[in-house]
Amino acid sequence: MVRTWLALPLAVILSAAVEAPAPTLTGFSTAGAARQLELERRFDGSLNRANLDQWLKRLSARPHHLGSPAGKETAGFIAGLFRSWGYETSIDTVYPLFPTPRLRRLEMLEPARFTAALEEPALPEDPSTAGRQGQLPPYNAYSPDGDVTAPLVYVNYGLPDDYDVLARFGISVKGKIVIARYGHGWRGIKPREAADRGAIGCIIYSDPHEDGFFLGDPYPKGGWRPSGGAQRGSVLDMPTYPGDPLTPFAGATRDATRLPREKAPTIARVPVLPISWADARPLLAALGGPVAPAAFRGFLPLTYHLGPGPATVHLQLEFDWKLTPACNVIARLPGAELAGEWIIRGNHHDGWVFGASDPLDGLVAMLEEARAIGLLARSGWKPRRSIVYAAWDGEEPMLLGSTEWAEQHAAELSRHAAVYINSDMNGRGLVKIDGSQTLQQLANEAARDVIDPEHHVSALTRHLAANQGAKDYRMDPLGSGSDYTVFLHHLGVASANIGFRGEDAAEGVYHSVYDTYAHCTRFVDPGLHYALALAQLGGRFTLRLANSETLPVRFDAFSRAVATYVDQVAKLTAAMRSQTKEQNEAIRAGALENARDLTIPFVAPSPQPPVPYLDFSPLENAIASLNGSVQAFNRAATTGLPLESRRKLDQVLIECDRALLDNAGLPRRPWYRHQIYAPGYFTGYGVKTLPGVREAIEQRNWNEANRQIRQSAAAIERMAAAIVSAIPLFRAQT
Amino acid sequence: MVRTWLALPLAVILSAAVEAPAPTLTGFSTAGAARQLELERRFDGSLNRANLDQWLKRLSARPHHLGSPAGKETAGFIAGLFRSWGYETSIDTVYPLFPTPRLRRLEMLEPARFTAALEEPALPEDPSTAGRQGQLPPYNAYSPDGDVTAPLVYVNYGLPDDYDVLARFGISVKGKIVIARYGHGWRGIKPREAADRGAIGCIIYSDPHEDGFFLGDPYPKGGWRPSGGAQRGSVLDMPTYPGDPLTPFAGATRDATRLPREKAPTIARVPVLPISWADARPLLAALGGPVAPAAFRGFLPLTYHLGPGPATVHLQLEFDWKLTPACNVIARLPGAELAGEWIIRGNHHDGWVFGASDPLDGLVAMLEEARAIGLLARSGWKPRRSIVYAAWDGEEPMLLGSTEWAEQHAAELSRHAAVYINSDMNGRGLVKIDGSQTLQQLANEAARDVIDPEHHVSALTRHLAANQGAKDYRMDPLGSGSDYTVFLHHLGVASANIGFRGEDAAEGVYHSVYDTYAHCTRFVDPGLHYALALAQLGGRFTLRLANSETLPVRFDAFSRAVATYVDQVAKLTAAMRSQTKEQNEAIRAGALENARDLTIPFVAPSPQPPVPYLDFSPLENAIASLNGSVQAFNRAATTGLPLESRRKLDQVLIECDRALLDNAGLPRRPWYRHQIYAPGYFTGYGVKTLPGVREAIEQRNWNEANRQIRQSAAAIERMAAAIVSAIPLFRAQT
Repeated sequence: MVRTWLALPLAVILSAAVEAPAPTLTGFSTAGAARQLELERRFDGSLNRANLDQWLKRLSARPHHLGSPAGKETAGFIAGLFRSWGYETSIDTVYPLFPTPRLRRLEMLEPARFTAALEEPALPEDPSTAGRQGQLPPYNAYSPDGDVTAPLVYVNYGLPDDYDVLARFGISVKGKIVIARYGHGWRGIKPREAADRGAIGCIIYSDPHEDGFFLGDPYPKGGWRPSGGAQRGSVLDMPTYPGDPLTPFAGATRDATRLPREKAPTIARVPVLPISWADARPLLAALGGPVAPAAFRGFLPLTYHLGPGPATVHLQLEFDWKLTPACNVIARLPGAELAGEWIIRGNHHDGWVFGASDPLDGLVAMLEEARAIGLLARSGWKPRRSIVYAAWDGEEPMLLGSTEWAEQHAAELSRHAAVYINSDMNGRGLVKIDGSQTLQQLANEAARDVIDPEHHVSALTRHLAANQGAKDYRMDPLGSGSDYTVFLHHLGVASANIGFRGEDAAEGVYHSVYDTYAHCTRFVDPGLHYALALAQLGGRFTLRLANSETLPVRFDAFSRAVATYVDQVAKLTAAMRSQTKEQNEAIRAGALENARDLTIPFVAPSPQPPVPYLDFSPLENAIASLNGSVQAFNRAATTGLPLESRRKLDQVLIECDRALLDNAGLPRRPWYRHQIYAPGYFTGYGVKTLPGVREAIEQRNWNEANRQIRQSAAAIERMAAAIVSAIPLFRAQT
Repeated sequence: MVRTWLALPLAVILSAAVEAPAPTLTGFSTAGAARQLELERRFDGSLNRANLDQWLKRLSARPHHLGSPAGKETAGFIAGLFRSWGYETSIDTVYPLFPTPRLRRLEMLEPARFTAALEEPALPEDPSTAGRQGQLPPYNAYSPDGDVTAPLVYVNYGLPDDYDVLARFGISVKGKIVIARYGHGWRGIKPREAADRGAIGCIIYSDPHEDGFFLGDPYPKGGWRPSGGAQRGSVLDMPTYPGDPLTPFAGATRDATRLPREKAPTIARVPVLPISWADARPLLAALGGPVAPAAFRGFLPLTYHLGPGPATVHLQLEFDWKLTPACNVIARLPGAELAGEWIIRGNHHDGWVFGASDPLDGLVAMLEEARAIGLLARSGWKPRRSIVYAAWDGEEPMLLGSTEWAEQHAAELSRHAAVYINSDMNGRGLVKIDGSQTLQQLANEAARDVIDPEHHVSALTRHLAANQGAKDYRMDPLGSGSDYTVFLHHLGVASANIGFRGEDAAEGVYHSVYDTYAHCTRFVDPGLHYALALAQLGGRFTLRLANSETLPVRFDAFSRAVATYVDQVAKLTAAMRSQTKEQNEAIRAGALENARDLTIPFVAPSPQPPVPYLDFSPLENAIASLNGSVQAFNRAATTGLPLESRRKLDQVLIECDRALLDNAGLPRRPWYRHQIYAPGYFTGYGVKTLPGVREAIEQRNWNEANRQIRQSAAAIERMAAAIVSAIPLFRAQT
């Protein structure tokens, strides 16, 4: 069903071509925009899908996780490419702690004996899955060593709400081992919440509902997770701080001061192991206790029960804990005019095993983008600003390469980093651009100017078609989960994560041995057309950011978004107030007791103190300030400024995003300094906007909520003041 | 966890007792209410759970479907009981057409051979499931004979919306055999919709998602449908007319004029067979074609595909088509004062196999209610109005006994039937009272005065606890699915269906060989406490309806409900208008094409003509009239009227529900004459309110919608006029 250019009538090609020219480019004068579009046509013309295919095949041929021989060679190979394209290239090595498994054992002792396989079977249809050599087996990085035996409790996704449900059944996990399914929140939350409640171990399995046969035929017939597939992954406490657990706030240089391992707060506190559903099924089938409520039920052919027991399991884990060199490849193309402003473009190169989709489909796109930009530079063109490409190592264990490098270079980055553009796993589907809404105008123009390789309409057109009623691309803010984290949340650098997704089966092999070249080219990105589209998209971001007369940072979308977030937290408080009142009345009236089925254990919740009225006025005033500043800025803004004005304006534009940091950081996690976005403390990947305020409200910590309202309002006021400070610069026309 | 009276502290018992006394009883003076409550205490005092248990055990011992030897004996046994309790009792026999299977064969020919078992395995843990003798095997009554072979298509629930989804995939069922899962609409819709689209056969299977291991452990470990369990059931076109397909509008007496079978419009047009999921699994696993969309996926451990094929099946069915005597037991207790007003109380006695939960848990409750009322009558008390008990035969094949009896006696019933109270399958849980909202005040008082046997609070209190924020019991209107149908929808008799449900696993064995005494007393109604509660509830309905000074029919709730329905159909039209506009714009803009995944077949829908503005004013005026009448009635209403006024008032109150009939009936189904309620033509069990209007709108038949607005408005105006005609009667005080 995939159409190719050859099969298309000429009229369609022409109409697609007519759609492409961009009427305006933010940050460019009309003449500058025309020159830029011409430059981009030359850029597009030199992109070559054969390169992507060749690199993908080569780099996915061997396991190339952090610390592996192939990982080191990957860094060297990439560095060699960058050098050959004319970039100033270095391999910047940091030395984070990285545990690898020495012993993994999971067995059921009661009511029947069963020993989990803990290995992913090789598939004859994909011979690359056969070689065990050099592979990391399924494990959760930063699980502690441990040897525990206890009855099992099924905790659904293992998130706080799930424990609230278990409490209604009168089920405690104290002294138990929990089994959670993957999904609905970042995996590292699961052992943390289990440990907080007294559990002594945690098993995480891949339910077929989340990424297996519920969604489509399993690999190799289809692309989805087979019965024996397991999901590796880090359980380091990312929402507290990412990167090396031993060196928070500082680069993990060879001679850095390190915490002793037992003091590192981000290492998981209970042994935790990921398993396949083939391994999980006998355990779940052996659980007794109440039938799990509907929202807890996965898609295995059994009746889900909660336990505890009679299933009793023994989990034993031992790891090699060692400092491991992470080899970041850093490649620079100095700017001709504003060399002190860095446009940083990154994608990691390490994979959990072969990593074809994650990260290589994204990485090879970035490489081809860099090659084509290198060609432009060799032909005499120079970017106004400096371009810095980064191929990060050790992303999978917890953003190690990017975080440690950025912490090491924090002072420089604070001065020089203008924007960070990230990509990661990529595949067929719709364009996805998440991040700082100060980049939203740029994102719309970039998506508008990239043609979908299958539909031959612009990526923006497809996005709008799939979001009926949308008038433009609205960026979703970023939580965590890839290398933008340190730039956005710790350093206040406007950041975006870009790619294509949604029509691929990459989740089906995510972090498994089945994420191979064969799988990727059948079920994720056949022909690597979407990797090429990512090269085009990334190229537009990089080239426009690097080459615009003034940075294409704008504030309208951000201002609207923040107003929405303020409205949300106010409405959340009001909703909690009425729900609390209603719930307390129901408890007082005995309604929960009267409504329940007496054959099912039930413990009524305790009444909650009433929800007070909070003073949201600091945020409301800050929004009004911001809105006024943005309107004044828009009225004043003009092009054609002299270089010195443009340099100053860019500094202001960069400062606007920095203004959103607060050095105190968020409560209990000072590393996270951004006041508008953060990964949710209880969601991980998922963003919380106005995180200090929102999480205080969600946790019913009203004093903290009032303090955080003032702290985040101050950040918004700082940004509003910074925006206003740009206005005089527009008066100095050339 | 089930508490017993013995375990309760005295204070709890006293507080429950304090809750019980009814402050008011609609239709009674204060003194009359006190006498009535005393009568009910005597009634309660003679109820005996041992009787329920003994009858349940006896009547579920053998298969007692329509036409079976045990079925006939059941009728005789019940008649004997009624006679022994002092009722004037007859067995009124009608002779509907009833097919039973001679040959059932289902086999897969491609891509592998598989022959479906089509039998429900005996369970050693429940010996009653072992005896095959006299059992009807799983089949759909009123499937035609047929012998068809074709590729298979999976059609989800087989309802119209599902075919719209298939059309988006470009999948037609013309010439194919469809496989649908049970649920989300009455089973008879499935072969009808399949036939309408050119399918040549239909298989209906029980997916574990609907009533199997998704919900709880399968029988015998738990109460839910085991892998080999299948659901028998009628596929006669109930929404066109229920009862004997050969004698619409007339009783199926021995010498009735009959349609030839091939002219009977309600017999299914394609062969149709119900199977277990064990039989369905190989068929579904052998389907190719697109992966089914998420809403189509059941809970079997496979990836659901749509087909068509490669699975190709052969379905062969032959039936014995014969007129079969249906033995209704009719037992009368004549009224002392208003003998011409009949309070009819019914429950069917036939089961598909052993029928312990369906219908016997309900039937034995009605029998015990009747025994206790018989005792009251023998002690000298006489009801004001006549009580008619009916134990219906042939309900399962399609309400045959009740429909044919009521059609035969339609003229008498139109004159004499005051109210019909139905029960059917029953189990643990919350009180459920559906039907004519003119009975809602009565329903609230009855639920208020019955104590939940496990919680020891009133059934109304439990209901309100489970429906937070509700101030009173709001009756849901009735569609179809039990013996109230002819009374309510054809004859305009105010009707209610009463019982307890929701904490039982009756659905897990519904219409299967596993609906046994052992299952019922373990998983549906242990100790038959809820059958006894139903006896108390039914007793209150019957005794209050039969004994009140004036009929406890009131109009406030009905008036409010109809106003809601008018609002709903107006909003529905508005929503369809904006959705149609939006959808047409998306089609015109090519948005559906741009948003789609090109690897998945997709056929865009055609634009729809715009939705016009309808004239709802006749309904709005009718609601205003009704509301005015109800308020005037309430202001005038008083107690203490002389007998002749009460007789006339009762006639008006009865006439008010009759006024809602229109002799023209609903479009294309004139048998259904009620203008406010009907089973949905495309839902079957589920009610459609303002059915003529609502279904015309849903089908975009705007001219018919305008006609039906006027027709239903006229019915409401007739009721409003009837209510007003009662007012002068209140002036004649004693």
